[in-house]
Amino acid sequence: MKKYAVIVAGGSGVRMGGPVPKQFLLLRGKPVLWYTLNTFLAAYADLSIVLVAPADHAETCRELIDSTVAAQRIQMVAGGDTRFHSVRNGLAVIQEEAVIFVHDGVRCLVSTPLIHRCYEAALRSGSAIPVVGSRDSVRLVTAAGSEAIDRSRVKLVQTPQTFLSKILIPAYQAEYRPEFTDEATVVEAAGHTVYLTEGEPDNIKITLPADLLIAERLLQGA
Amino acid sequence: MKKYAVIVAGGSGVRMGGPVPKQFLLLRGKPVLWYTLNTFLAAYADLSIVLVAPADHAETCRELIDSTVAAQRIQMVAGGDTRFHSVRNGLAVIQEEAVIFVHDGVRCLVSTPLIHRCYEAALRSGSAIPVVGSRDSVRLVTAAGSEAIDRSRVKLVQTPQTFLSKILIPAYQAEYRPEFTDEATVVEAAGHTVYLTEGEPDNIKITLPADLLIAERLLQGA
Repeated sequence: MKKYAVIVAGGSGVRMGGPVPKQFLLLRGKPVLWYTLNTFLAAYADLSIVLVAPADHAETCRELIDSTVAAQRIQMVAGGDTRFHSVRNGLAVIQEEAVIFVHDGVRCLVSTPLIHRCYEAALRSGSAIPVVGSRDSVRLVTAAGSEAIDRSRVKLVQTPQTFLSKILIPAYQAEYRPEFTDEATVVEAAGHTVYLTEGEPDNIKITLPADLLIAERLLQGA
Repeated sequence: MKKYAVIVAGGSGVRMGGPVPKQFLLLRGKPVLWYTLNTFLAAYADLSIVLVAPADHAETCRELIDSTVAAQRIQMVAGGDTRFHSVRNGLAVIQEEAVIFVHDGVRCLVSTPLIHRCYEAALRSGSAIPVVGSRDSVRLVTAAGSEAIDRSRVKLVQTPQTFLSKILIPAYQAEYRPEFTDEATVVEAAGHTVYLTEGEPDNIKITLPADLLIAERLLQGA
């Protein structure tokens, strides 16, 4: 089936403490987002990318697209106020039946096997949400303080969150709600069950300066 | 008040894929655990360490202790079957009123300010559990599949989990239960409330090969 990757690169990057949004920070001389785009382009020859970019960085994104291995398979759309609105903007350009990956632009270490696994699982079940276990104990903040949660039941959610278009696109017709923090919650609100699949420890989000160092080392094939 | 750090170094290290337990892996030429011990020794002049070590690595631990900045402030006890039993073995040698830090030997990037913060907070409230927020969305596995949890309420628990001895030591008189995965759960089971304090993003557990790389770079003062 046709594949689309909606890659969300709308973050403001404030947590990195610098004026450059995280997705444009350089990793071995190339922007973080460049790695993300090329990995998806290489995963399937019939995959198209919808890059959801911050409006004030359209120029940078355009140049970045032109530097990838298959710029003609990438189109750019403007980001929205929230992740929900950004993804909705991205989905708006998809007009055919497809498997859709929704991916964080700053998860530049996503692997081809993970993309393939999500695709196969979404084709079978309608959705594939990559998750990893927590290495730390987990507590939930409550009105009275906090309480322990059984760590073996806790899953940390990664991307690409992957869906059949016939499930994902109608779900995004919903009115925005604050609890729509990722695609899985939107699809569940539309009445669907979502299915988890095994993510990857290295598939980290670049959100802190230390993450750039990690990514650099992992890319060096360590 | 007198300070003790019970440092748990009883892991088997199987997840690193090698025969060397994680706490003995080298980071810039020194074992992971060496950094942990020295940071605690340097934090307070009147701090003593109880190192809970795997019985079959007593020799290695002895040499490691001798290579620290204040070996005379470290005593070694044998580990138990579970973390609970290891910590209980460590507490058994503490005979005076104190603030007790219980720390993972493999969290070698713990900072002096975090140790000081936990001490002050435990002195005030009886306990201090360092936690950080989750950067990923979080789901809870349920009988029916999984459900989203409000990420802002989820806290990932680090160490040093810090307590007044008069709270911690009696709590460890309990019978072991499988839900005793950390010290906070043991203290809660004894009827106490535990108090959270802000942890540190860099205070990671060395459990995967990639973590060693991260730690190496962070130590380089990046």
